[in-house]
Amino acid sequence: MKESFEVKLQEFKDYLRNIENLNSTIALLEWDSMVNLPSKGVPFRSEVLGYLSGESYKLTTSDKMKEFIDFFNGKDNLDDITRAMVEKSKKEYDMTQKIPADEYREYTIAASNSGAAWEEAKDKSDFSIFEPHLKKIVDYKKKFIEYWGYSGDKYDTLLDFYEPGITVKDLDIVFGELKTAIMEILNKINASEYKPKTDFFKGSFSKNLQEDFIKLILTKMEYDFNERGRIDESTHPFTTNFGNKDVRITTHYYENEFRSALFSCIHEGGHAIYEQDIPDELRGTTLAEGTSMGLHESQSRFYENMIGKSKEFWHYFYPEAQKRFPQLKDISFEEFYKGLNYVEPSLIRIEADELTYSIHIIIRYEIEKALINDEIDVGDLPKVWSAKYKEYLGVEPKNDSEGVLQDMHWSDGSFGYFPSYALGNLYGAQFLNKMLKDVPDLYAQIQKGNLSIVHQWLSDNIHRYGAVYKPSELIKRVTGEKLEAKYFIDYLNRKFKEVYNL
Amino acid sequence: MKESFEVKLQEFKDYLRNIENLNSTIALLEWDSMVNLPSKGVPFRSEVLGYLSGESYKLTTSDKMKEFIDFFNGKDNLDDITRAMVEKSKKEYDMTQKIPADEYREYTIAASNSGAAWEEAKDKSDFSIFEPHLKKIVDYKKKFIEYWGYSGDKYDTLLDFYEPGITVKDLDIVFGELKTAIMEILNKINASEYKPKTDFFKGSFSKNLQEDFIKLILTKMEYDFNERGRIDESTHPFTTNFGNKDVRITTHYYENEFRSALFSCIHEGGHAIYEQDIPDELRGTTLAEGTSMGLHESQSRFYENMIGKSKEFWHYFYPEAQKRFPQLKDISFEEFYKGLNYVEPSLIRIEADELTYSIHIIIRYEIEKALINDEIDVGDLPKVWSAKYKEYLGVEPKNDSEGVLQDMHWSDGSFGYFPSYALGNLYGAQFLNKMLKDVPDLYAQIQKGNLSIVHQWLSDNIHRYGAVYKPSELIKRVTGEKLEAKYFIDYLNRKFKEVYNL
Repeated sequence: MKESFEVKLQEFKDYLRNIENLNSTIALLEWDSMVNLPSKGVPFRSEVLGYLSGESYKLTTSDKMKEFIDFFNGKDNLDDITRAMVEKSKKEYDMTQKIPADEYREYTIAASNSGAAWEEAKDKSDFSIFEPHLKKIVDYKKKFIEYWGYSGDKYDTLLDFYEPGITVKDLDIVFGELKTAIMEILNKINASEYKPKTDFFKGSFSKNLQEDFIKLILTKMEYDFNERGRIDESTHPFTTNFGNKDVRITTHYYENEFRSALFSCIHEGGHAIYEQDIPDELRGTTLAEGTSMGLHESQSRFYENMIGKSKEFWHYFYPEAQKRFPQLKDISFEEFYKGLNYVEPSLIRIEADELTYSIHIIIRYEIEKALINDEIDVGDLPKVWSAKYKEYLGVEPKNDSEGVLQDMHWSDGSFGYFPSYALGNLYGAQFLNKMLKDVPDLYAQIQKGNLSIVHQWLSDNIHRYGAVYKPSELIKRVTGEKLEAKYFIDYLNRKFKEVYNL
Repeated sequence: MKESFEVKLQEFKDYLRNIENLNSTIALLEWDSMVNLPSKGVPFRSEVLGYLSGESYKLTTSDKMKEFIDFFNGKDNLDDITRAMVEKSKKEYDMTQKIPADEYREYTIAASNSGAAWEEAKDKSDFSIFEPHLKKIVDYKKKFIEYWGYSGDKYDTLLDFYEPGITVKDLDIVFGELKTAIMEILNKINASEYKPKTDFFKGSFSKNLQEDFIKLILTKMEYDFNERGRIDESTHPFTTNFGNKDVRITTHYYENEFRSALFSCIHEGGHAIYEQDIPDELRGTTLAEGTSMGLHESQSRFYENMIGKSKEFWHYFYPEAQKRFPQLKDISFEEFYKGLNYVEPSLIRIEADELTYSIHIIIRYEIEKALINDEIDVGDLPKVWSAKYKEYLGVEPKNDSEGVLQDMHWSDGSFGYFPSYALGNLYGAQFLNKMLKDVPDLYAQIQKGNLSIVHQWLSDNIHRYGAVYKPSELIKRVTGEKLEAKYFIDYLNRKFKEVYNL
């Protein structure tokens, strides 16, 4: 009996390992598409990717997979890893199995058309081009929720794909508190007379020197881009990986801007370190990856903002920046640091500062939740969007392109994904609070250029678990508490009080 | 009846298209392994490649494949493309099906171990390390030939994988004539007092300038590296493709050498143009590729030598070289051209000049044929090798590393592959002869920098057929004759008579 269990478990792991092999192949082809693919090679590549995705789908939804799941699901005395592996496989199986194949195919086509329509609509700044497509996507999502089932809020079902265990009930609380707190700080900043300068971030910054400076920082962060990773260029920065020993980041250099490539690399470096730290033993269990989008963002946004825009970090690195970019010679440390943390309510999410960024996310969250629960129609979106931006940030888009059409996420049906970004901020601050208890001289160490101590803590407490624990379990294990908004709110208050002399 | 035939044919093509999708995926992973892969990512990548190769093997040898082959094989009135497609699929099916699966697996492991042993043996310059492994590989090959079957010479069965239709009987004639002719020319050169200078090819040639010059030439050759290809760096230059619109070459720059990257790129450019010219309609028929290794080499070696080392080519490009590399300013055109065509019998195949290169191949051919036919033992190889080098080229290796261990081809069992290189020379000259009849002012055009006329002829006469015709059929269609050594011999005589004032 025992032996047959072990044999079956090994068979299951071999099977999952093949799915990982196939999925990492797909990921490599996608990386190549973004980094290398000659323009006319696109249609061939799309066909190959379609074929491979189909094969991956077959493996994930096969009778064999059902047999494994039926055998292991609900078994007592499974260890943590096996239990998580079975649960995750079942979830994925159910997600696809519950939707009739022909409806799923129709949805895929609709999503693909919708992507093209979004691009055209954004170019022409005309929401009406995108509207009928988006309506279709939202209708499919609502229908799928019926197939998948739901207990509390319908939107919970979507959230669960990106952030297992998180519900509308949770988010309404933490996002509510966060929104109020950010708006309060923002009011104070708006009332203050002080405005940091940022003009010195524009100018001439050669790609080679940027690269050199970025590599210095990433080396200190302990992202291994020599033997276990690499840095390439693509239109939009991203991180991808094929196992834990081939974790690649990309960036985009702007030679007239100091911050863009730099902070994108620190951000992607945070993602990459997470994946490089996943232990070998998790290979072939579906768990050899970050545990959720939100946890992943907690790592990237933590490095980008809580470390990468801290005073101590720049105490160490600013002289290195000045060495490479002589135009910074006459800019005092104080000016530079405050410039990095300049706050200005704006319309575009991806350009937002650390304080207001979460508001952009909360707006999207509120809209998605209302759409899925039939409280607003797709046709209302531009109006609702403008009203929320005006109310929370005091700015209003002049057109659809800088408003409701700015992100592509809705065009491919990624409802439930946006909250991850703001959750990343909340997780990050809660981790930082614990890290400071464990390592009281953390920032003093950072000031000496010791980022190893940060990496070690993250590795020991978070990275080494891969996806064995759900985010809600993990945060409890690490910090002893469930997710709370107060840590990030405290952090923001402390930081911007100091930057703006409030 | 007709309709069911059409439906079945479409099914077969869809099936083959999936095999192409999978194989092009494998090719991309291999390209990435050579160009991008971080060192510690190798084991994961090997596992993924093993998995994908297994899947490809399954598709190629499936019952479904057998059903298609049984249905179409031998059917009357198939058009050329369908007939070739069925034949090629059957050949591949038979090749793997006829060998018992466990023996094939053992062989794969032996070949992999043999590769490692060859590397060690080469490093230590000690054939005895490699010998037992090579013996195993040769024994497997001999056993496999029994499974596969043979009619004439046993070695024919191996040749047929690389050069369908070519036999020992053919090769003994053309290689025999070629060997005699080359040795005669070589004797005259050795007796001549004239020795072209080559010292100016060494010095300082910056990578950027080399790249710029190479791109100029490849653009003129009409290799599209912008929209349908790209040039990267790897340890050894190679060409690979994923369909006809993503054809990539690699090179390796040596900043102290003028010729290395340049001629490797012209060579790979010849391969790449062939693949870029394959018509879209052949996609999914197994025929969307060059028809044999030899035909492929005929394109690459044609561009590298018959075009790329011709007087007329350099009449156009030498001023461009001088512009970029000032050290060539004082080197006369004559000196430069003759330096490129310097002949010197040497020990290392990949460094050989145009004249003696084929002798290196013929030596390997004679040895392989004798090994497979039990006329010599693996243990005799170093002795046989040295004797042949001495007899044909007048040089003798000082050790195994610069002798019998120099190529890796035998370690992975690629017996029958070497002849392709020399066949490439023969095909190339026979094509050139016909090309000159069709385009009498060919070299005058080349002298004006018009390489388009060369490309057009190759495209119309060779490339557009992909693998629809076997090499022997193709050469007959194009030149009206079967393969003859005399065209290449005439070419060599003409060229080296002039270079060496014989």
